[in-house]
Amino acid sequence: MSMFWDHDDDKPREECGIFGIFGHPEASILTTLGLHALQHRGQEACGIVSYSEERFYTEKHMGLVGDSFVGDDLPKRLPGHAAIGHNRYSTQGKSAMRNIQPIFADLATGGCAIAHNGNLTNARKLRQELVEEGAIFQTTMDTEVALQLIAKSPQVPLTNKLIEAMGRIEGGYALVVLTGDKLIGARDPIGLRPLVLGKLGDAYVLASETCAFDIIGAEFVREIENGEIVVISEEGIESITPFPPRPARPCVFEYVYFSRPDSFIQGRSVYDVRRRMGKYLADENPLDADIIVPVPDGGIPAAIGYSDATGIPFQLGIIRSHYIGRTFIQPTQSGRTKSVSRKHSANRAVLEGKRVVLIDDSIVRGTTSKKIVQMVRDAGAKEIHFRSASPPIKHPDFYGIDMPSTEELFAAQYDIEEMAKELGVDSLSFLSVDGLYRAIDGSPRHDDVPAHADHCFTGDYPTPLADRDSSESSKEYQLSFLLD
Amino acid sequence: MSMFWDHDDDKPREECGIFGIFGHPEASILTTLGLHALQHRGQEACGIVSYSEERFYTEKHMGLVGDSFVGDDLPKRLPGHAAIGHNRYSTQGKSAMRNIQPIFADLATGGCAIAHNGNLTNARKLRQELVEEGAIFQTTMDTEVALQLIAKSPQVPLTNKLIEAMGRIEGGYALVVLTGDKLIGARDPIGLRPLVLGKLGDAYVLASETCAFDIIGAEFVREIENGEIVVISEEGIESITPFPPRPARPCVFEYVYFSRPDSFIQGRSVYDVRRRMGKYLADENPLDADIIVPVPDGGIPAAIGYSDATGIPFQLGIIRSHYIGRTFIQPTQSGRTKSVSRKHSANRAVLEGKRVVLIDDSIVRGTTSKKIVQMVRDAGAKEIHFRSASPPIKHPDFYGIDMPSTEELFAAQYDIEEMAKELGVDSLSFLSVDGLYRAIDGSPRHDDVPAHADHCFTGDYPTPLADRDSSESSKEYQLSFLLD
Amino acid sequence: MSMFWDHDDDKPREECGIFGIFGHPEASILTTLGLHALQHRGQEACGIVSYSEERFYTEKHMGLVGDSFVGDDLPKRLPGHAAIGHNRYSTQGKSAMRNIQPIFADLATGGCAIAHNGNLTNARKLRQELVEEGAIFQTTMDTEVALQLIAKSPQVPLTNKLIEAMGRIEGGYALVVLTGDKLIGARDPIGLRPLVLGKLGDAYVLASETCAFDIIGAEFVREIENGEIVVISEEGIESITPFPPRPARPCVFEYVYFSRPDSFIQGRSVYDVRRRMGKYLADENPLDADIIVPVPDGGIPAAIGYSDATGIPFQLGIIRSHYIGRTFIQPTQSGRTKSVSRKHSANRAVLEGKRVVLIDDSIVRGTTSKKIVQMVRDAGAKEIHFRSASPPIKHPDFYGIDMPSTEELFAAQYDIEEMAKELGVDSLSFLSVDGLYRAIDGSPRHDDVPAHADHCFTGDYPTPLADRDSSESSKEYQLSFLLD
Amino acid sequence: MSMFWDHDDDKPREECGIFGIFGHPEASILTTLGLHALQHRGQEACGIVSYSEERFYTEKHMGLVGDSFVGDDLPKRLPGHAAIGHNRYSTQGKSAMRNIQPIFADLATGGCAIAHNGNLTNARKLRQELVEEGAIFQTTMDTEVALQLIAKSPQVPLTNKLIEAMGRIEGGYALVVLTGDKLIGARDPIGLRPLVLGKLGDAYVLASETCAFDIIGAEFVREIENGEIVVISEEGIESITPFPPRPARPCVFEYVYFSRPDSFIQGRSVYDVRRRMGKYLADENPLDADIIVPVPDGGIPAAIGYSDATGIPFQLGIIRSHYIGRTFIQPTQSGRTKSVSRKHSANRAVLEGKRVVLIDDSIVRGTTSKKIVQMVRDAGAKEIHFRSASPPIKHPDFYGIDMPSTEELFAAQYDIEEMAKELGVDSLSFLSVDGLYRAIDGSPRHDDVPAHADHCFTGDYPTPLADRDSSESSKEYQLSFLLD
Repeated sequence: MSMFWDHDDDKPREECGIFGIFGHPEASILTTLGLHALQHRGQEACGIVSYSEERFYTEKHMGLVGDSFVGDDLPKRLPGHAAIGHNRYSTQGKSAMRNIQPIFADLATGGCAIAHNGNLTNARKLRQELVEEGAIFQTTMDTEVALQLIAKSPQVPLTNKLIEAMGRIEGGYALVVLTGDKLIGARDPIGLRPLVLGKLGDAYVLASETCAFDIIGAEFVREIENGEIVVISEEGIESITPFPPRPARPCVFEYVYFSRPDSFIQGRSVYDVRRRMGKYLADENPLDADIIVPVPDGGIPAAIGYSDATGIPFQLGIIRSHYIGRTFIQPTQSGRTKSVSRKHSANRAVLEGKRVVLIDDSIVRGTTSKKIVQMVRDAGAKEIHFRSASPPIKHPDFYGIDMPSTEELFAAQYDIEEMAKELGVDSLSFLSVDGLYRAIDGSPRHDDVPAHADHCFTGDYPTPLADRDSSESSKEYQLSFLLD
Repeated sequence: MSMFWDHDDDKPREECGIFGIFGHPEASILTTLGLHALQHRGQEACGIVSYSEERFYTEKHMGLVGDSFVGDDLPKRLPGHAAIGHNRYSTQGKSAMRNIQPIFADLATGGCAIAHNGNLTNARKLRQELVEEGAIFQTTMDTEVALQLIAKSPQVPLTNKLIEAMGRIEGGYALVVLTGDKLIGARDPIGLRPLVLGKLGDAYVLASETCAFDIIGAEFVREIENGEIVVISEEGIESITPFPPRPARPCVFEYVYFSRPDSFIQGRSVYDVRRRMGKYLADENPLDADIIVPVPDGGIPAAIGYSDATGIPFQLGIIRSHYIGRTFIQPTQSGRTKSVSRKHSANRAVLEGKRVVLIDDSIVRGTTSKKIVQMVRDAGAKEIHFRSASPPIKHPDFYGIDMPSTEELFAAQYDIEEMAKELGVDSLSFLSVDGLYRAIDGSPRHDDVPAHADHCFTGDYPTPLADRDSSESSKEYQLSFLLD
Repeated sequence: MSMFWDHDDDKPREECGIFGIFGHPEASILTTLGLHALQHRGQEACGIVSYSEERFYTEKHMGLVGDSFVGDDLPKRLPGHAAIGHNRYSTQGKSAMRNIQPIFADLATGGCAIAHNGNLTNARKLRQELVEEGAIFQTTMDTEVALQLIAKSPQVPLTNKLIEAMGRIEGGYALVVLTGDKLIGARDPIGLRPLVLGKLGDAYVLASETCAFDIIGAEFVREIENGEIVVISEEGIESITPFPPRPARPCVFEYVYFSRPDSFIQGRSVYDVRRRMGKYLADENPLDADIIVPVPDGGIPAAIGYSDATGIPFQLGIIRSHYIGRTFIQPTQSGRTKSVSRKHSANRAVLEGKRVVLIDDSIVRGTTSKKIVQMVRDAGAKEIHFRSASPPIKHPDFYGIDMPSTEELFAAQYDIEEMAKELGVDSLSFLSVDGLYRAIDGSPRHDDVPAHADHCFTGDYPTPLADRDSSESSKEYQLSFLLD
Repeated sequence: MSMFWDHDDDKPREECGIFGIFGHPEASILTTLGLHALQHRGQEACGIVSYSEERFYTEKHMGLVGDSFVGDDLPKRLPGHAAIGHNRYSTQGKSAMRNIQPIFADLATGGCAIAHNGNLTNARKLRQELVEEGAIFQTTMDTEVALQLIAKSPQVPLTNKLIEAMGRIEGGYALVVLTGDKLIGARDPIGLRPLVLGKLGDAYVLASETCAFDIIGAEFVREIENGEIVVISEEGIESITPFPPRPARPCVFEYVYFSRPDSFIQGRSVYDVRRRMGKYLADENPLDADIIVPVPDGGIPAAIGYSDATGIPFQLGIIRSHYIGRTFIQPTQSGRTKSVSRKHSANRAVLEGKRVVLIDDSIVRGTTSKKIVQMVRDAGAKEIHFRSASPPIKHPDFYGIDMPSTEELFAAQYDIEEMAKELGVDSLSFLSVDGLYRAIDGSPRHDDVPAHADHCFTGDYPTPLADRDSSESSKEYQLSFLLD
């Protein structure tokens, strides 16, 4: 008997969704809705800080937004016209309440709350320096490194403290900052992590994705540019670009997996991009089959695109449960059940005797894919042709995506035939890197100036990686105490 | 500001899923998995009773199976080779822990646990009689009426007590009973509520649907017949049919909405039946349009069938969130958001400028449908043609489906044009009753001997309704105390 | 390392305190206060049932009254002019929420709540009969046997049902019953367990002890007589004595240990009785010593009486902690601490070099006494003379006192010299049975018609003991399921 | 109806108890016991930090030690041979989990945990300076000011950081510090707050009071001197006295109220000192009366001393409940109950018709005293003579005692006749300041070099009060956010 988490263990994971609003009397309610729309970016914990009349209010929870920020008294618990919020994905042990964002500090210039999506690639180094100068860290998060740098900066006002801090940190990030009179948004110099600007009446809104605007009825204004800082106050909005201009390289995984299909990135519908991935996947590796079956939900848009392009019928051959609980004990004594998933089930009526094209958005470890293939085979499929709507993932990420180390990446361990054999499929193919770029931009990758951060597929990291290159093997802070 | 539950308030709701297993060393783990597969039949609470060495073990929880029956010590908490379990849908106030099934009694013949799906139509009457004879009820459930009848029966052995009790109760039900040496399954005389028999090695399994067999790797053996009692013990399985034979009339809503698409009923794939509903829906009311958009997840199979029949492309024009929380506060100050759903969002890239066929499995109150239509309209759809893959629901149910009263039923209040106007659609049509029968059986309804219980569509109730016909208006027991 | 409960394991324990009030607009608040004053009679759990406008309200908690029945909304949660409440001592496993009183039933004559202090000596026998007739028990409590008998009685009105039930039960008990229009109190035929009647304005009050009247400002009216039933309604109070008269034999342990020192029993101050026990203890076994040290709190009144009688100074040589928690881990590696108590500590400044008379109210197992003697010895006492203010306990109780079996009773295992040696004291003596009677009544025991139930000291049980005399060894009901 | 806390609102309150141990394999178990013995110094919350193999372990709880640090796995949760712990009294809002000590920081020299009893009188000033230099505070506690000073100190090793920090802070404090290889104890320059050193085998122990040694079987070694730092490591114990010598002035309230009667301070039994207070109280204001009645528990030793000195009998005229819960609703409609306490009850049998000397350790606000006098009067006392075993409290404390402001102090509002009238007593007297000194030291106060800090009685504050003298009226930090 063994415990296991039946999560999407074969998927990359975004670490965070962020949201901010300034100038609306129902700021905390709208932040709740915005975080709910961004829930797919982090389900482990959520937090909101609001500001009203000289005081900041904060509430943090383990669990979903819709289970946490409830109750008619929410506007009393989190009053004010301005608020920021955060969804967290990754867990670091049971006692991680302190690691829920936004985090807060009483600075010499007044109170300041910050929430952040992404990862600093020189956080370990900066942290050591700060501790040597007497800083006391209360969390293990990168976000606190940024906050300590802000606190230590002798600059005034806060915006200049933030600029000084951003000058010292490296990596990919988007952040929102709330002070007594401002909402600030910022994006790293190459725009790795997303941040968009919206407007709801007179109020300004910041969010990781446009779907957070739709739920509150806000209009999309524009994306925050790479390296840009926007300062929203009663005087309106101001844009600052204090750093030398660099070409943007937003993370390609937002198209492949992270963003919700109804969001728009760089003016493009994510759903349409994913359908085109299915189309190019069909074009690059044509085959004859009876049905197209998506691995739900990630594979659905590409499967529709594939079906449109080929005329092969789209069928729900795999059913996804909406009721995944925390954990299950797996039976040991009944052979066939070992490969049974608690999340997916096979629809035998559709699969039996068929030549099946199975479409998923990506393959990471391969473990879930293997289970699904076995399930489809057990349900009587005659042939299984697995298609990944993104290229093989061969390299880890260091900018805030939770992905396994190289040794665990399926495509880093095996060549294509070995992978097909491991999965137990009749054929396997991946979308090419150029096919991916075509689906997004309409043209192949420009290898000299690539339009996206695509290092997981190509190994081409767009920034230095100070912590990785230092002698210490792991970036995780070795806190000498257990967080309470 | 107002609180609201963002549940599927426009859907009928099944009250329960049941499961039982006899003769397997991991009985409680398999019951957990079986209940997980039946989670769509009831998400509010769940319970399991197992039996091992002269003692029954019980555990009950509010919440999902996968959040409740966890922990490596589960086999210690619920030991033994036999177990039964239950998923509950409906809530009756916060203090309803006692109302979680299975319920238990120490009878003169030994311990006896029972779990039940359905509703007794003469429960109120029987309950009054029992109380007058000195019975003390501890719950407000029909199930306890059956259990008290069993306890009072002078017959031996337990099977005969059960037969006597079944002779007095009326309505639609399926039930599983666990004693120290037997697992018993029974189905009401016309088979309104479902119950299927499976086998896993030497162990017998009973469940509401076949999908619970798939998850544990059990084989489907047959359906329990209407009016049949099966008694499973170390001696094997015995079938008893103590009541006069009657034609079966299983509930048609299992095909329309309740059962999981990968389940089989009466030898038919539920998914295939639903695709055929989409096909007949297209045949009965042809129209010209740009895209077929399902209301997920219920409308997806019919939408695929509709698309197949018409060649109009199937698109995910509405995205369903997997992260519905318990409750939200709705903002009041930003007009457009009033109609925004926390469960569904519109995919503007697909809908804008299009003539849309919107397909759902059914319309109950019409409230959610209205919100969805508004959302699709706001996203820029040029025309909206709403299609319900089942006939208009005009009559309430009394056999265990949680549905609103007649006054709240959309199709009982309005004619077809009024409904279209209320919903704000360009056209509206429902599948006909004959179309529904064709999708299931291949032939129209035989009005003299209908093959299914279809009273919600036709008003043709298949059994007497004692409690409804008594002078008291509501069947709910007026317990004079609040349950703890 | 071992877990242990640092409770008063050397003390007998009362199982319950009961309270009822009828005719006061703040019935539930006053019940809360009354139960608080009776908290010493049971600290494990507490429950209250109130009645208002056709409905009963109930709330049950594990823990202390003052931690449980809190909140400004208490009168809303438990509304009405009538209420009954109960404190429970004994625990029967973790899942004993159902075993919290009062318990409730919807009878044919209407709702009925009952709370009970004591024990039925033929409960097992009656329970078996009831189950054979079809009764379903939901708890393992004697109280439910009484309630089931009431429910089954064909008599009307409820008072006659109660009389019929009381005619069948045997043992020692006091009980309060709440119906829609009455508060009923009753005491067993020989008045083993206490029940007193009070008045607060126009409202009547029933309680286990008079201290519950003091806290709410009620006046003591009289004791309920042995075998008496009082029925309180809007018409006033009615007394019924349906059973043949018998001499009363109230339990002597109320004087020795259970009742609070500020309560009055049979017109006598409990505090004064206990001081007189100290006086007779000194008279019966005179000795020369330096200080009198009580084992707090039980031994304090007797120690004051002893000091008054002898002139030897009273000193707080043992300090009692007010902050006893649930449980502690005991260290294993530091020898001396093994005998250290978490509840008592020695006051070295008082004890060092002294000849100490140590006075406690009773000795049950001897375990705590041993620890205390060792502690006093370690603190430097030159001589230790242990005096028990009650006679040796040699026989178990069957009327609701939680006491160990004969084999564990200290005085049943050893003679007086052996006990002194076991305890490690220089001398040991107990108050004589006649001394105890003198302290209470002013005269020695009349062996032919003893005024009290004193079986623990004398073995003279005042009623038949049906369950004990049946073939089955233990009275505990062997429920075949674990309570949830 | 109104909510009220039935706490000892007429008593001063110590803020903390501290404990530390180094060199024992059961360090955390012994810390648990030590904190339990110190529970009277703080009941709101408790925390322990232990160290084992390169890592610190921490656990913090609201509530009592004996309810919190439980479970057989405690040594696994808090492993190691060294630990420190803390009991907290005062509450600062519901969300004060962060304010539970010990607090921790990862310093440049390694991890460091600190727990502290007392109050810094220049904490506000220091905090402002630290924030201006970029420090981020996570709590509102003085203790964190000390910790931030330690973190910022460029000195090495940690001991020198601590000396630098102690050179900047002012006020009264005792503290324990745990690092990876040391346990450090320190006491403020005039020894206002207590700290004692003990030994258990080879292990050293530090605690606020000697009673914490008794419970674990440790031997008392000596008091830590005022201004002394002791450093305990594997090398043994080292004493450092880095500050210029000053006369000690330990707080007199330890004798009057805070310390447990079985503790020893400066070689004197607290119990004996309190008995002598009773003797001098009798000597200073002789009177004729029938009985001496203590207000339990604080007044008991003085009452015994008073009774010894006068020959008037000592009686338990007031009973104290052991079961004080969190809060109660008070009834409004029954006049007499308004003055009824949930903590004390009158023993009518003792009081009726008597001339009573009522003895308490002190009077702060007078509110509880008034209730008790009323209760004693209601119970029939003929005369009531109130005696306070300490002088009138006229001045607030700034060194860690939680006492009301001057306007609320009973003795600061009224002269002695007015106080007697307010209380409703026949006579009232307080012990004189010289009487108090005599009871402690055997001689009256030396006004030029007083041996104790006695400012609450005399107004003679022994240190500067920087925060109080600054323009801002309140010392409480106005954190701009609500702690989570």
